[in-house]
Amino acid sequence: MGKSTFIDAFGTQLTGQGHRVAVLAVDPSSSRTGGSILGDKTRMERLAVDPAAFVRPSPSAGTLGGVAKATRESMVVMEAAGYDVILVETVGVGQSETAVANMVDSFLLLSLARTGDQLQGIKKGVLELADVIAVNKADGPHQRDAQAAARELAGALRLMHGKDAFWTPPVLSCSARESTGLDTVWERLEQHRTLLDSTGRLAAKRRDQQVDWTWSMVRDELLGRLHADPAVRALAPGLEQQVRKGELTATLAAERILGAFGEN
Amino acid sequence: MGKSTFIDAFGTQLTGQGHRVAVLAVDPSSSRTGGSILGDKTRMERLAVDPAAFVRPSPSAGTLGGVAKATRESMVVMEAAGYDVILVETVGVGQSETAVANMVDSFLLLSLARTGDQLQGIKKGVLELADVIAVNKADGPHQRDAQAAARELAGALRLMHGKDAFWTPPVLSCSARESTGLDTVWERLEQHRTLLDSTGRLAAKRRDQQVDWTWSMVRDELLGRLHADPAVRALAPGLEQQVRKGELTATLAAERILGAFGEN
Repeated sequence: MGKSTFIDAFGTQLTGQGHRVAVLAVDPSSSRTGGSILGDKTRMERLAVDPAAFVRPSPSAGTLGGVAKATRESMVVMEAAGYDVILVETVGVGQSETAVANMVDSFLLLSLARTGDQLQGIKKGVLELADVIAVNKADGPHQRDAQAAARELAGALRLMHGKDAFWTPPVLSCSARESTGLDTVWERLEQHRTLLDSTGRLAAKRRDQQVDWTWSMVRDELLGRLHADPAVRALAPGLEQQVRKGELTATLAAERILGAFGEN
Repeated sequence: MGKSTFIDAFGTQLTGQGHRVAVLAVDPSSSRTGGSILGDKTRMERLAVDPAAFVRPSPSAGTLGGVAKATRESMVVMEAAGYDVILVETVGVGQSETAVANMVDSFLLLSLARTGDQLQGIKKGVLELADVIAVNKADGPHQRDAQAAARELAGALRLMHGKDAFWTPPVLSCSARESTGLDTVWERLEQHRTLLDSTGRLAAKRRDQQVDWTWSMVRDELLGRLHADPAVRALAPGLEQQVRKGELTATLAAERILGAFGEN
């Protein structure tokens, strides 16, 4: 709920400034239940009825590869349709953060007020992807905590990036509920993108993302072919049965599947 | 630091009860810096010098598939060497939680005191993997928060699992620093495993894990062959260059790489 409230307030502020905003999601659904448990993240009340905004519902299921591909393709379509700001959200399950970082110009990490060693709750790998960090819910009784968390995070990032870094991600505090600090979040995102652009890094980044995407498609297609291969499909159920019964080791079964795939 | 303090205290308690404890890790290192920023997680002071314990340092680098394979193989070795408790820790980056869930009998989720909508900070996908949940740092001024967080989590889990579930993960609070509540964590883990065992589900789970492992090995090996393939290696740099220059789309480049791989 925190995140969709943020996107709702942030997107509304951007359409208020004349932007056309599209919201896409990379959210491979849970493989176990497929259901939503801790909140309805599609609750973007204002943005959903804003004529300058388009909110695409998350695909209800799919592999990360498939969902990421659909999102990339939607980005191209939305850009062509005149949306100048495309927000791609991720629930942060599995490798979806990395997938999203590989398709956007700037990565905004949204955090909650945390202090002390609770900083560890933020995954190091995700922190490294962030270009701008916003500590949300800096309102009412949480304002002090949010500001303390922001200071602490800023310190960690300075250590992480060093003095001479091209860009040290700013850590801002904001409140989506009260719509405060959101303008600064956007300014810093724009500043990051302008810096990327003016130094030629944006073009380089996009080129790298295209190469990365090439290999993603190769891997997804190859694994798709494996699972669709007639020889593999004919052989696999029997091999799985033997592995279950303990008549065949996983290693040997894997070799036989690969052998069958290699035959044609 | 929170997690290694927990493992240190928990493992020490188990060796005190006569168990032999091995600690392994599934921690594919950060692809960007490879370094540790927010804490030294190998700090297990007591366990490191405990003759009844073995702590394997995390591999310093590698893909998730490679690290998971090494850990699975170590588990077999440690079991054969007489370690009756094997703790496999994960930093929770990328898909490592799922990889760990696919190799253990019981999955313990360690959380910190959080209340209110901060529950959303715990990934739904991870919550679904948990067999037992422990809210750590229930000490000093955080005790009340930890207990409130535990109650709230327990409520969410009851909703998630329903009344007639085979097993509803208990949510416990504990303090690794003060070594309180750790005995209950172990009791509940044992209870979970005993229930699995007595109902035949442990055997079924292990069989499923073997099948899952089979396919993991197939996928890893296939992708390894792709990247090692002479035709692919000969063609790829030129194609990447063309993609970078915008002379070739990612989709077409992907098709050509797959074509080259299919040739032999």
